[in-house]
Amino acid sequence: MLTKITGGITAPQGFKAAGVHAGIKKNGKEDVGILYSTVPAAAAAKFTTNKMAAAPVLVSQEAVSRGRARAIVVNSGCANACTGEQGLTDARTMAHQAAQALSLDDYEVLVASTGVIGINLPMAKVTQGINQAAAALSPSGHESMLAAIMTTDTFSKSCAYEFTLGGKLCKIAGIAKGAGMIHPNMATMLSFITTDAAIEPSLLNQALSQAVELSYNMISVDGDTSTNDTVAVLANGQAGNELITATASPTYQEFYKALQTVCTELAQLIVRDGEGATKFLAITVDGAASFADAKCVAMAIAKSPLVKTAFFGQDPNWGRILCAAGYSGANVQPDKASLMIGGLTIVENGQGATRLDAAKLKEVMAAKDIAVTVHLGIGAASATVWTCDFSYEYVKINGEYTT
Amino acid sequence: MLTKITGGITAPQGFKAAGVHAGIKKNGKEDVGILYSTVPAAAAAKFTTNKMAAAPVLVSQEAVSRGRARAIVVNSGCANACTGEQGLTDARTMAHQAAQALSLDDYEVLVASTGVIGINLPMAKVTQGINQAAAALSPSGHESMLAAIMTTDTFSKSCAYEFTLGGKLCKIAGIAKGAGMIHPNMATMLSFITTDAAIEPSLLNQALSQAVELSYNMISVDGDTSTNDTVAVLANGQAGNELITATASPTYQEFYKALQTVCTELAQLIVRDGEGATKFLAITVDGAASFADAKCVAMAIAKSPLVKTAFFGQDPNWGRILCAAGYSGANVQPDKASLMIGGLTIVENGQGATRLDAAKLKEVMAAKDIAVTVHLGIGAASATVWTCDFSYEYVKINGEYTT
Repeated sequence: MLTKITGGITAPQGFKAAGVHAGIKKNGKEDVGILYSTVPAAAAAKFTTNKMAAAPVLVSQEAVSRGRARAIVVNSGCANACTGEQGLTDARTMAHQAAQALSLDDYEVLVASTGVIGINLPMAKVTQGINQAAAALSPSGHESMLAAIMTTDTFSKSCAYEFTLGGKLCKIAGIAKGAGMIHPNMATMLSFITTDAAIEPSLLNQALSQAVELSYNMISVDGDTSTNDTVAVLANGQAGNELITATASPTYQEFYKALQTVCTELAQLIVRDGEGATKFLAITVDGAASFADAKCVAMAIAKSPLVKTAFFGQDPNWGRILCAAGYSGANVQPDKASLMIGGLTIVENGQGATRLDAAKLKEVMAAKDIAVTVHLGIGAASATVWTCDFSYEYVKINGEYTT
Repeated sequence: MLTKITGGITAPQGFKAAGVHAGIKKNGKEDVGILYSTVPAAAAAKFTTNKMAAAPVLVSQEAVSRGRARAIVVNSGCANACTGEQGLTDARTMAHQAAQALSLDDYEVLVASTGVIGINLPMAKVTQGINQAAAALSPSGHESMLAAIMTTDTFSKSCAYEFTLGGKLCKIAGIAKGAGMIHPNMATMLSFITTDAAIEPSLLNQALSQAVELSYNMISVDGDTSTNDTVAVLANGQAGNELITATASPTYQEFYKALQTVCTELAQLIVRDGEGATKFLAITVDGAASFADAKCVAMAIAKSPLVKTAFFGQDPNWGRILCAAGYSGANVQPDKASLMIGGLTIVENGQGATRLDAAKLKEVMAAKDIAVTVHLGIGAASATVWTCDFSYEYVKINGEYTT
């Protein structure tokens, strides 16, 4: 039983946060943030699979491998990616400076950056920002921390829930930033989750892996897998529940459900705020031979610029959806495939529905949230991928990003 | 030695063509065409790998398997894809009607369609068009045939060359249509090639396979592999050269060079006319461990919406290029990768060039034709992929395609 609560990422007990403007972003908004647990916490994180992984990803991978962490220091406006040795030194310096300011060891601090790729961090500004943020840490610092991770996001993304574990009230909350270069493969751009539940690091890691697979790894804005994707969760045990030590325990299942809910909600918010997005599309593929096949077909549809522009234009050019299924590489048989858009049957067994109501279809295409279902008629597996449409605004945002 | 000539696809001896307006396209332009060899010809063709392959593709695959063909009948305005049993009957009827009008056997006729997916052919109009086109066949029918294969193309694409084989003057010519849903995997949308050279069908097939691999399969407009892609070549031997019977013969090499030239020229023209394209990008990846790796990296860059919109906006956001290389799946090492845009060194061994001339880079990004080179520093293999940028116009064209 999960109940929505307010308070964001600092709602769970024993967490503080702050975001400040250090001068990295030109728009005067917060660009350096710190999330801090007042007590030691179990930690798990998933990172981009991009081989050009950014320096902060490399530093955080090393730190989180111990299964414990106390703080996450983050900046927006500069991704510190493709920055070579200098970038690695800068990311390590960020961790060190945050550790000094918080009286922690360097390895207790995770680092994350987001923004333009290929330029070095303005370290004088970053240092000042870290010190200011550390001094400003507060149990109500949620909003400023959230602002500090945003780039082209048009709204902030967070959620928080209460649930009970063995009679103890626990909280879990998360924040995320997304917008562009969204086609996560292990994680999305940046997402941080806090919980005051007590759980062993190895189980926290296992729960995060599974939750990420079914949330962040099921969304796509533009098919571009970022260099900086990071999802991290800190679990500090302040709720006082009995430590979760086995996946077979009912409390693990309860905890997993809460974590999964937070991850899915944040992942969907990222799609809703996809660069230039005007529509939210849930692409479900069922009747597939395997989950891999179902996801493969759903992702091909979600990534197709032709499908995405058709939804933007509210053009019921459904042939493009089956076309994408056909080139996806999955096991697909033309004469067995059916298609529904917004509950309306468009194709049955490979042929266009003969009594398709054009007026009704137009209505369905005009909605902001649209469900697309492809039934492959081959097996019993299914998958749902969430994506957005492709608009003039996407082109504008990305044609003018650095200039 | 290849010399450019005029006359298009009917320039080689023994070929006639015609295109007529049968009323399938709403704009009053030619929409049914026939290409005809006055004598038996060796034939080879490559088709889409999309599992939703259109009915005309299935019919042509069967026909061309004999290695001989005399005619190609084509329509634009309707792809006859995702049309089930009726679509297959219609495609067979097209071949049959063309065969009747030309006194051929059904299996001597290849069929191709392009246009909207998921609607059935208006067969009364198609039949009338086939009969009209057959009656209008002429050795100077090149232009009207070319018009009959166009959809959203903004200019027609053709080329013709002369060359000698064993002292005999031979000709080879081709036409193509492209614009959208261009990410060929075996072939592009539609492309027809004629030659009066004499070559055995099996060798013609081998030459076409290799030429397609290095031309049509190296271009991408939007990453969408069409349901209808077809490249077909007819070789009728009217030039009188000694029949080419072995790949080891110098004449095979000469013929291959001519075929490769035609395929590459047409493939590049398709990219230049990509929907909404304002720039032509040649993405070369060298220093790769294998050709597959080089192509994989070049294709990831060519397909990235973020890279494509950056070039449209003339925004030198080069980090996106290395980011795409990183998620391509190929063997890539960040500290060994270098990047040049328009001859300007941007990144050396994974780090931004320190003395980058911003004014010069701006000039380079403003060009219409831009060469992008990624040096991986790992092996000796290379590949070049041709693509275009992503503009507002692409979104407009594809948001309003059927409506």
